[in-house]
This record gives sequence, structure tokens and C-alpha cells, in this order.
Amino acid sequence: MLEHTLITLTTDFGLKDPFAGIMKGVIYSINPHVKVVDISHNVQRHNIFEASQTLFMSYKYFPPGTIHVAVVDPGVGSSRRPLLLSAGDHFFIGPDNGVFSLIINDPAAGPFKMIHITASDYFLPVKGPTFHGRDIFAPVAAWLSKGTDPGEFGHEIDDCMKISAPAVTFTDSNSLTGEIVSIDSFGNAISNISKEDVCRLGQAESKGVVRVTYQNMQLSLSEYYAESRGAVLSAIINSFGYLELFVNKDDAAEKFNIRIGDSVTVTLDV
Amino acid sequence: MLEHTLITLTTDFGLKDPFAGIMKGVIYSINPHVKVVDISHNVQRHNIFEASQTLFMSYKYFPPGTIHVAVVDPGVGSSRRPLLLSAGDHFFIGPDNGVFSLIINDPAAGPFKMIHITASDYFLPVKGPTFHGRDIFAPVAAWLSKGTDPGEFGHEIDDCMKISAPAVTFTDSNSLTGEIVSIDSFGNAISNISKEDVCRLGQAESKGVVRVTYQNMQLSLSEYYAESRGAVLSAIINSFGYLELFVNKDDAAEKFNIRIGDSVTVTLDV
Amino acid sequence: MLEHTLITLTTDFGLKDPFAGIMKGVIYSINPHVKVVDISHNVQRHNIFEASQTLFMSYKYFPPGTIHVAVVDPGVGSSRRPLLLSAGDHFFIGPDNGVFSLIINDPAAGPFKMIHITASDYFLPVKGPTFHGRDIFAPVAAWLSKGTDPGEFGHEIDDCMKISAPAVTFTDSNSLTGEIVSIDSFGNAISNISKEDVCRLGQAESKGVVRVTYQNMQLSLSEYYAESRGAVLSAIINSFGYLELFVNKDDAAEKFNIRIGDSVTVTLDV
Repeated sequence: MLEHTLITLTTDFGLKDPFAGIMKGVIYSINPHVKVVDISHNVQRHNIFEASQTLFMSYKYFPPGTIHVAVVDPGVGSSRRPLLLSAGDHFFIGPDNGVFSLIINDPAAGPFKMIHITASDYFLPVKGPTFHGRDIFAPVAAWLSKGTDPGEFGHEIDDCMKISAPAVTFTDSNSLTGEIVSIDSFGNAISNISKEDVCRLGQAESKGVVRVTYQNMQLSLSEYYAESRGAVLSAIINSFGYLELFVNKDDAAEKFNIRIGDSVTVTLDV
Repeated sequence: MLEHTLITLTTDFGLKDPFAGIMKGVIYSINPHVKVVDISHNVQRHNIFEASQTLFMSYKYFPPGTIHVAVVDPGVGSSRRPLLLSAGDHFFIGPDNGVFSLIINDPAAGPFKMIHITASDYFLPVKGPTFHGRDIFAPVAAWLSKGTDPGEFGHEIDDCMKISAPAVTFTDSNSLTGEIVSIDSFGNAISNISKEDVCRLGQAESKGVVRVTYQNMQLSLSEYYAESRGAVLSAIINSFGYLELFVNKDDAAEKFNIRIGDSVTVTLDV
Repeated sequence: MLEHTLITLTTDFGLKDPFAGIMKGVIYSINPHVKVVDISHNVQRHNIFEASQTLFMSYKYFPPGTIHVAVVDPGVGSSRRPLLLSAGDHFFIGPDNGVFSLIINDPAAGPFKMIHITASDYFLPVKGPTFHGRDIFAPVAAWLSKGTDPGEFGHEIDDCMKISAPAVTFTDSNSLTGEIVSIDSFGNAISNISKEDVCRLGQAESKGVVRVTYQNMQLSLSEYYAESRGAVLSAIINSFGYLELFVNKDDAAEKFNIRIGDSVTVTLDV
């Protein structure tokens, strides 16, 4: 049996209200031996896709058996289902609203098994409207971490909500177009173009020069941030494997007014 | 004997300065086996009442024996006393400045026992002005968590500072007036009107329709957030049992300029 | 052998992106028994000196054997070295960019031993650019916490980068000038003038009155914050042993437009 020593939390609760602390209280009341780790509580309010990105870039760095709880849940209380997803050696608990889209879209993350959580014996007893993070997701995560079989929490389902992620388009064998999908707190603008996408360009050719274009600017492709000097916009395949626009020691997004959704083109000059 | 596996922290330190981290260092130096959980470090600066609300809505979700440390302490170093409060199965440590008002005002939270912390043997040795969070409250919490008897930290007292909370007024048997007492990070405006207050309306009548009024607006009472559609202000008994004004997926406080202290009226139309 | 039960984190990652959470995932994957404590993730972006101050005021409050990881690292990926510093009973891991300056400049923190981290067997296997926090510092800290000998991570070196801290100047035996080096989230302005510096004034004299001057204002020296009444700027030797300018229950820096680098003078009137 997998050991469950860790539960992670990803929410849009912010860090002023006590909601994340309350979830930890609920979890430790059920399993005092587990460790709860914050991934982020500052996901943009109600931004399900951003939560999905945050989880997708993080979960692999946690040990097998980790239980990841996500609460970005604008539809709480409506008919959207509470979901328990097992994906390879990892477990995900949260609303069935697309928050696990990027994980389910990645075949390498599977095999997948989805359970519609219905076993209210495991929920916190409440009357009135429900704060699912506290009343359903936290206690289910805690009971799962104690060894309760996933099948005990509900019945298996074969589909769940998915948000479609912006896709990379190959315009010809030497050229592709993607877009900016997130901006980190350093002002780096991260695209959906992966290292593998870039490598797929010009497979027929032996060699060539990779050119990155953003808003009519030709950007050089750096190996590390400090390689780029001065206040110029540069590109890098970042440490998560995605093409990123940056300014060395400065805020690229602010300086060049980069926004989510902006196009980025990569071409191979052969 | 109660087990003390958890210490919680509620402060107005913010998350830039290392003050909360330092308190954890002090606690773990004394008791490496306890777990420290953040409830919030973003209580508004010097807002003792807000800290009291944060604690009151959170503490019940932690296991019996939990030690809750609160440091919102504008009078640090003056003659205000360091306080250890036991309330039912929970323990509270902090300045005697009213920060535990809502707990002490709730008979269900008792029985209460108050100790004026004076046993400086348990304090961090310091010369000069004292950072009570670090030098008194953190070490006392850590020693208490190791099993030191509460009576060892000082002598029992029979009163402590209380801040009076805004009260709900019953204008007649079918009508009550309360006020907005906090606004959460989603922009939801929470009143001091509890579910029990609303249920007390029109006890003589068999049935009736509950009407919520805010600034001459009649608000419908929803069962869950997603029930309300469009940018309308609605009311809900929230998951903590209090009447709350909200806009589905939007910031009600900003949109309707709701402020702490604003009146809310509930009437039962029979 | 020293026990390593704690690893602390000090970074400029902010609390929106999952970078700090990812470092914890890496650490717990290697050593599930260690505790990770956040000191701050809100060090000003790329401000190496501020990170050094944060560490210096915090590390002493953690138990012997604690491993402090600092990631404020504008030069990541360039030739700057990854560093493991042992300082007395504490360990520090981070980039060799001056982030440990204040510790190394304090003889009381030693003896010191510096190791250039090169043993890539302990690193996370990555291709492409490296996020040293995740790929080098987190795993090395985790392996060190499990008992790996510091010497296993690389070879000893006898120097490292130091940032020079602003010094206090004694203008005569009764007078000194220092400067504001940080402003905390309460708006208190902390100088580099230590209690010891102030005590050194007028050693020849038996007694005298200490006068603090900032921008032509004579400030009274309080023993504790609440001693000062009204919106006046006052001075205090703070709980970390440094001269600080404050307004009781208000934001001194904002109110008096105090900035880092501003001069503060202390004189002894005999």
C-alpha cells in the first residue's frame, strides 16, 4: 500500500482569512500524523485554469502517495460534483470543475481513476450551506491519508469536467505559434510552448537557428537568465521545460506590457 | 491528560518580516514534536477585534488540546498582562487586550479559566524591550504543549479585557437589525446576524418569508452562492452560520461599496 | 552528531507561485521526517542584502543543527557557486552571492566553514536550465538533514562573496551616526545602530542623556512602544537590539517619509 505522508493545498482563499488554517485543523483532527504543505493560496480568485497550471507544475515534485487538494470553486453548493482523482501514484481531491484538466490531459500522468465523492459519512457534519474545502475535501483527504480505500468515498465515474488548454499550432514544419499562459511574480511570461515542441521543428533538417518572435521583436534564446544583459527582452526554455520571455533582473511583463493570451512564434531558420 | 499536538498562530505580523518564523523557531527549540499551524498573519494591523473574529471562527475546527497563540498587541511592553486562557478543551495565549473577547463571550466555549502569565522562568531570557510573541507567548505555548501544568505559568485571575461586539437588535418579534462585521477576501460581507437570530423571528407564527434589506435593497436569501445569477446582491446564511451579503463570482463589497458597520435588516413577512 | 530536525526557507519567490511549495515537495521526498519552516518568501525581489538581514535576525532563534536555505538568486545559472556554510551550530545553503554576509561578518556566529557544492549526485536530475532552489539547494539541504557529511557535497573553500553592510561612524567619543537599513511591515524604521554602539558612547563619563536626531528632529528614547503618546516620532532600542524609529500604533515610515539610507545620529549629552 502507498504511504500517504503529505497533503498539499492549492486554493484561491488568499492569506488573510483563516480558511486554509481551518482546513488544516480539520485534517489534523482526523490524522495528526500527516503533513500539510501549502502549494499556493493565492491562485487568482475563481481562476480554475490557473489552479490547474499551479498543480500541474508542482505535483511531480512531491513523493508518490501525496494527496493534492484543490479548492478553487466558484460553483460550490451547486450540482458540480466533488471529485477524487487518482493519477499514477498521486491523488487529487477537489471540485469537478476542470481544476485537474492539465493533469488529465497528460497521458504520462496516468493511469487515471475518477471517483464521484458521495460517502457523506466521511464529511464534516454540517447543516446549511457547505464550505466544501472544510466539510468535504479536507476530511476526505485526511481519511484517505489514513489508509481508507479510495473506493469507499463514492463510485467510479468515467468522465469529468475538462477545460481546454490553449494549444500550440505548427504553421509549417519549421514554424510554430503558441501563447503566453501565465506570468510569474518576477514578471516572467511563460508560454505553452514546450521544449519538446521546439525540438520537433525541422526534424528533417540537421541543424538550424531557433528564432523567437514576440510582437515583431526577435528575441535571442538564452541558456540562463544572467546570460542576457541590459533591459532587453529575451527568451529561455525555463526550468519547467517551457519557453519563457524574461528581462534579466527585471519585470518583463510590466516593461513590455506582456499579457496572457499574447502570441509567441518560434521558427527554425535552416 | 489532554494531548497537545498543535499550536496555532494568529497575528498581524504580515508575511514579509520574519516574526512568525522566529516564533516557530522558538517553539520548535523547546518542543520539536509539536506542529505549528498558521491561522492568519494578515490580521489588519493592531485590529484586536478582527483577530478575535478570526480565532472565533477557526478554533472549533482544531482538535481538543490545541493551543492558540494570538499576537495582535499594540500595547506590548505596557502594563497589559500576558494571558493564558483555557476554554473548554482549547487553550489561548496572548495579550490581555480583548483579543479573546468573542470566545469568552460565548458560554458554549467554556468553562473558562484565566491565568495571568508571570513565571518568567519560562520566558526567553532577554534584556531590554520585549517582543512578547517571541519571548513570552511562544515559549509558554511550547512548554504548555510539552505538558507543563497551566497553573505553573502564573496565578488565576477572574477577569480579563473584553471588547464589546456589535449586538443584534430585535425591533419587534418579526424584525431584527444587525451590521456588517467583516469582509472576506472574496468581497463577501459578513454580518453579526446568526442563523439562530433569524430562526428566532416570528416564533409564534407557523410560517413566513424572510426578507433581507440592505441600503433600501431587498435581497433574496440563497441556499448557495451559485444559486444567485447575474451581478445582483444576494444574502446567504454562510457556512459559519452567519448572514452574509454576496454577489455570485464577484466582489460584493467593492461593487456595492459595503463597509464594516453598515446596517442589515431581516424581517419575517407573515 | 548534531540532529537536524528543521530546514528553514528564505526566498524572494512571493506566495503566489508554487516555487516554495515545490522546494518542500523535493525536501520531503528525500527526508519525510524533517520539518520545513518558512522564514519569509517576501524578501524584496533580488534584494540579496535584505535576505541577509532577514536571516541574521532569525537564525539564532532556531535550534542548533537547523539548516537555513536562502534563495534570492538573480545570478542563477551563471558562474556563481552554490554554497554550504556552517556557522557555529547552524548550516546555511544558498548561492554564493553575499546572501550570508551578515552572518559571516559576525565573529560570534562562527567558527565558519565554507563548501563549494559540486557533488551533482545529490542534485535533482534535470536537463536544461536549472532552478537551483529546487534542483540543488532543496535536495542538498534534505540530504544534509538526513546526516550526510557536509564534506560530501563538495570541497572546502576559504572565501565567499560578501556585501559590505553600512557601518556606524563614531564622530567623536560622545556622538555616532548610523543609517536606516530596513523598514518593517508596521512602518518601523530600523537602523544599523546597535545597543552596544550606544553603550560605547561616553565611556569616560559616568552619566549622560542620550539624544537621537533624525532630520533635525530630537527624538525621545522610549523603553516600549506604548510609552510614546500621540503621533510623534520616537526612538527605541528594539527587541533585536537595534535603534528603531517608530510612532506608537502608526506607520512611522509613511508618516515621516523615512527611507532606507537616511541618517540617524545619537549623541550623549554629558
